[in-house]
Amino acid sequence: MNAEIITIGDEILIGQIVDTNSAFLGKELNKIGVSVYQITSVQDDKAHILKSLKEAEENVDIIIITGGLGPTKDDITKHTLCEYFDDTLVENEDVLKHIEHLFSKYIKTPISDINRQQALVPSKSKVLTNRFGTAPGMWLEKNGKVFVSLPGVPYEMKALITYEVIPELRKQFKFPYIKHRTLLTYGLGESAIANRIEAFEDNLPDFMKLAYLPNLGKVRLRLSAKAMDKSVVEIEMQKQINLLLPQIEDVFVGYEEDTSLEALIGQQLTKLSKTIAVAESCTGGSIAQAITANAGASKYFKGSVVTYITQSKMDILGVSEDLINKHSVVSEEVAKAMAKGVLDVYKTDYAISTTGNAGPSKGDADADVGTVWIGIATKNNIYAEVFKFSNQREKTIKKATNKAFEMLQKEILKK
Amino acid sequence: MNAEIITIGDEILIGQIVDTNSAFLGKELNKIGVSVYQITSVQDDKAHILKSLKEAEENVDIIIITGGLGPTKDDITKHTLCEYFDDTLVENEDVLKHIEHLFSKYIKTPISDINRQQALVPSKSKVLTNRFGTAPGMWLEKNGKVFVSLPGVPYEMKALITYEVIPELRKQFKFPYIKHRTLLTYGLGESAIANRIEAFEDNLPDFMKLAYLPNLGKVRLRLSAKAMDKSVVEIEMQKQINLLLPQIEDVFVGYEEDTSLEALIGQQLTKLSKTIAVAESCTGGSIAQAITANAGASKYFKGSVVTYITQSKMDILGVSEDLINKHSVVSEEVAKAMAKGVLDVYKTDYAISTTGNAGPSKGDADADVGTVWIGIATKNNIYAEVFKFSNQREKTIKKATNKAFEMLQKEILKK
Repeated sequence: MNAEIITIGDEILIGQIVDTNSAFLGKELNKIGVSVYQITSVQDDKAHILKSLKEAEENVDIIIITGGLGPTKDDITKHTLCEYFDDTLVENEDVLKHIEHLFSKYIKTPISDINRQQALVPSKSKVLTNRFGTAPGMWLEKNGKVFVSLPGVPYEMKALITYEVIPELRKQFKFPYIKHRTLLTYGLGESAIANRIEAFEDNLPDFMKLAYLPNLGKVRLRLSAKAMDKSVVEIEMQKQINLLLPQIEDVFVGYEEDTSLEALIGQQLTKLSKTIAVAESCTGGSIAQAITANAGASKYFKGSVVTYITQSKMDILGVSEDLINKHSVVSEEVAKAMAKGVLDVYKTDYAISTTGNAGPSKGDADADVGTVWIGIATKNNIYAEVFKFSNQREKTIKKATNKAFEMLQKEILKK
Repeated sequence: MNAEIITIGDEILIGQIVDTNSAFLGKELNKIGVSVYQITSVQDDKAHILKSLKEAEENVDIIIITGGLGPTKDDITKHTLCEYFDDTLVENEDVLKHIEHLFSKYIKTPISDINRQQALVPSKSKVLTNRFGTAPGMWLEKNGKVFVSLPGVPYEMKALITYEVIPELRKQFKFPYIKHRTLLTYGLGESAIANRIEAFEDNLPDFMKLAYLPNLGKVRLRLSAKAMDKSVVEIEMQKQINLLLPQIEDVFVGYEEDTSLEALIGQQLTKLSKTIAVAESCTGGSIAQAITANAGASKYFKGSVVTYITQSKMDILGVSEDLINKHSVVSEEVAKAMAKGVLDVYKTDYAISTTGNAGPSKGDADADVGTVWIGIATKNNIYAEVFKFSNQREKTIKKATNKAFEMLQKEILKK
């Protein structure tokens, strides 16, 4: 059974926001066995929304619509749904009470006429409670197809999907089982891997698919399988992974699944009862931010410093002025001293450091734009590697962050 | 003249990656006067891609396709284009030379048969040079419509758009002028603003549109205008902003445009020759990362610490143990002491601190999940405010980060 996601809003089409809702929806639908056939982003325009609803109805069984449910004039989804379902808006008592409750609790003012309009829903719809906002979700059916309209605000949409939409879909339908397993590899190009595993790929069963996802120094290999019988999927997936692994052993670092390398590292550190600290220069907090984005990071992450200016490398990390003068601030020696410094400051088992120049112009050092030294320190070992990334700031920060986690992962696996 | 963006790849539909390419494309096309009518994400499936090409051709004049150009078997865009244009693949000499050059320079191995296939392009296509990768861009035309196929790797796609596609589109067509201006407001809800400016909104000219973009404590108001005559757009935009501003003066903090509040703050600090440092606990590097994402941050950002564990708040920031024991680590006093501490460590004009509990479980302190104290310190002033955010980690970190910049912006504007 397939779904289409329709996201409504000019802000998506003019590039003012990145549509993160669709990725969340794709993931959650896959988890219960629903494949997403297409994602369509359309304008806040009635004719365009109507056209996309009609096309989606022809292609799939489940249509998830986000956006355009705000209280302001640019939001027209509800009126458009009424037209599509030949329906009218009626005030829903429960939604009105919920809005009044939210206002008395958080805004401390009575609700206005505009707020009250949020309680209007198509009469044929079943209301889905939005616990974090005033716009309710709406469930409609037509010719055996399900239409769900949700607000575009990400955390409101996510709660509605998790607590209302997914349980209802599972109640009404029987879905197949979908499984993805993604193997993270570092250090070998996409085409080189493809060459190596050509025979493996050619012999995959029909209900399995292999995809290559290259990105800044890593290639992810995704195996996807879909079948009505869960055990068939699980057994075949394991069999194929057992065939694949020996062929990529030298570049394989772990499984990704819903998680990132930094989350994987977090799990490993938690299991080993080890801790980590970070000293960042050119990556500017990006490594710490990636670590602490994971719940439970406080178990293994003790803290970090962003020593953006040279002086703070001396003051906080105890990097000596002589060392900096002799080797320059972007150097192997300084990267190592920073890693050792932050290991000592936070008294951790592992430390990462970065010093480099993300550009676009040169900073405190003469190093070329894109040059980054990454240091790793443990109680027994300190070393650093240099990388030449690009002259694009954002890309260099991201690449250096990825590389730092790759180096750390290798260090942890040494144990 | 309208465009449609078609992004190809199962990884988008299963939610493994967030489609950031489309936002970039939307922005760049708008800049030259091309409106994006629709964004369509489709599977790595020939029939589906053919169907989306046909539909796009019916709706728009320019079709930008990304993805599916890799050297591996899951990438089928080129063969599909051949079918759509009734064409065959031919080896392009220039592309082959470029691939050989990239391999000899970076990979240090001869190219394989798989790599060589990257030089195959539809015979009717004009090749667009991909300076950062092996898959060339391809420009095709049919019935007066333009089709551009680009690799899905973001930095390769971006360079192709900037250096090849946009210049070519401008050469071939005359586009209207599109302008967006986005006013950032803080502290008033979407519906309250809409109530206030109802008359203004009703009197906007036909070629202008107002949109409300609420997100975690801030509402962005976007005015969009489109007309053939640039001066008409510019004059009317200024006129409407002059009408709007007095009505939202108390909540207006600046213009967004392509920039964020943290980038705006960076511009202000640079102009004032002032500096900033950050001490983060529960936000875990998110504030530093947002600051350093902006080029030129080294002019005003001296550094930060992430004091994730309590001990480091004492060791690095000099927060006294007594103070922590008396008030707990998530408290007004500790937020203030952290802000003062990091101001002194980095010797800056401004400092931000955060201490709180992002959840999901309680950390070193007894504070409720979602409670965050944010401190601001200057040479003459130290204060902190408390916020109760949600019990969702990601949301609390993001909200606290936004709030911190909002407080800092207000502090800077005091001067």
